[in-house]
Amino acid sequence: MTSADPEPESVPTVSNSPADIVLTSQLQDVPVDRATAAARRVIDALLRTDRTNANLDRVAEELDNIADHLEQHAPVVAERLIDMWRGEGVTRHDPVTGPENAIAAPLALTGRADGSVDGVVTLTLPYQGPPGHVHGGVAALLLDHTLGVANAWSGRSGATAQLNVRYHRPTPLFEPLTVSGRMVSEDGRKINSAGAIHSADGTLCVSVEGLFIDKRVPRPR
Amino acid sequence: MTSADPEPESVPTVSNSPADIVLTSQLQDVPVDRATAAARRVIDALLRTDRTNANLDRVAEELDNIADHLEQHAPVVAERLIDMWRGEGVTRHDPVTGPENAIAAPLALTGRADGSVDGVVTLTLPYQGPPGHVHGGVAALLLDHTLGVANAWSGRSGATAQLNVRYHRPTPLFEPLTVSGRMVSEDGRKINSAGAIHSADGTLCVSVEGLFIDKRVPRPR
Repeated sequence: MTSADPEPESVPTVSNSPADIVLTSQLQDVPVDRATAAARRVIDALLRTDRTNANLDRVAEELDNIADHLEQHAPVVAERLIDMWRGEGVTRHDPVTGPENAIAAPLALTGRADGSVDGVVTLTLPYQGPPGHVHGGVAALLLDHTLGVANAWSGRSGATAQLNVRYHRPTPLFEPLTVSGRMVSEDGRKINSAGAIHSADGTLCVSVEGLFIDKRVPRPR
Repeated sequence: MTSADPEPESVPTVSNSPADIVLTSQLQDVPVDRATAAARRVIDALLRTDRTNANLDRVAEELDNIADHLEQHAPVVAERLIDMWRGEGVTRHDPVTGPENAIAAPLALTGRADGSVDGVVTLTLPYQGPPGHVHGGVAALLLDHTLGVANAWSGRSGATAQLNVRYHRPTPLFEPLTVSGRMVSEDGRKINSAGAIHSADGTLCVSVEGLFIDKRVPRPR
């Protein structure tokens, strides 16, 4: 993850906050979160449904109508970018934890007293690589983001400079996975972090080491 | 990428096929591809639309109705898994290139005479990490998958064992990116591959080295 420039006062860290708080944007009972949750169901169901018997021509038409409607009410992208980066230090729209992003599972991450962060997520067919298992690149995506959140929880933030991902065993779909991360060391602008994905029985599936550089992309204004 | 066990006769390689052929599953003019393309528009538009003025309560209801309908026509997952892994050596449903997966941009990859593969893709808001730029984990996802396709084009296939991703510059959204990969060397069951993402002006944004092990997850039967 690369962060936007921070609003330090709004970012919870292990030294300014109670432990065991959720660091990612929470699902709210608001229309945009409900619509996004429903879109996630559609993405998943499109991969599962009967190819010949589910009247997919009509489904295509209905989805295109919904997209037309949403696009008609969309501001130009430059304006939307300014708006989406305003407010919450934690984003609501990223592809891993964002309640407003239908691509996100979403993963919720909790900050622990020892400086680590972790969360549990169950992945389904949209995230498949090998048969019945998580795509290796999806594991990398989840871990990259988790390291970014772990860095923030340790009071640092930066752009990913290097990510080394090791695949120990195939990561299963359809069962709760624990994704965890922590900042390991810092040296000036360099931040070293590590993380892992474990399956429900505690087996290590994927581990990661990341090097981050404290350098930020400015928020759109 | 980790592959399913191969059906070697059906997999095009640089030594058995003409150059410049598309290796990934192509978008077809069939209902499931049209419905999935429409779902991609919805995912994107949900991130862009006006939060207060787009009648998102009604959109949520309509999307839930579509998901209900699709789920009613879905076989149990075990059956669907057998069916989705039948047929084409190249998958239609992965999260990078799959025309049937709304999470996929999708990226189409072409095999070249020199053994490399490449493709061009423009990413939008669902793939955002830092403001206006591609999420580092999404870049890793695209590259992991591209190396898998490159290995297949070189006549090999295997599970990702290690992925080293280096981020040289922020990767821009909203402009055509070239994603490329090639097998670099092989040593028994070990396969070494490398790839990159370049922006439209030829700037190197992300590079990757991958180690793959020739070991496959069996297809569901």
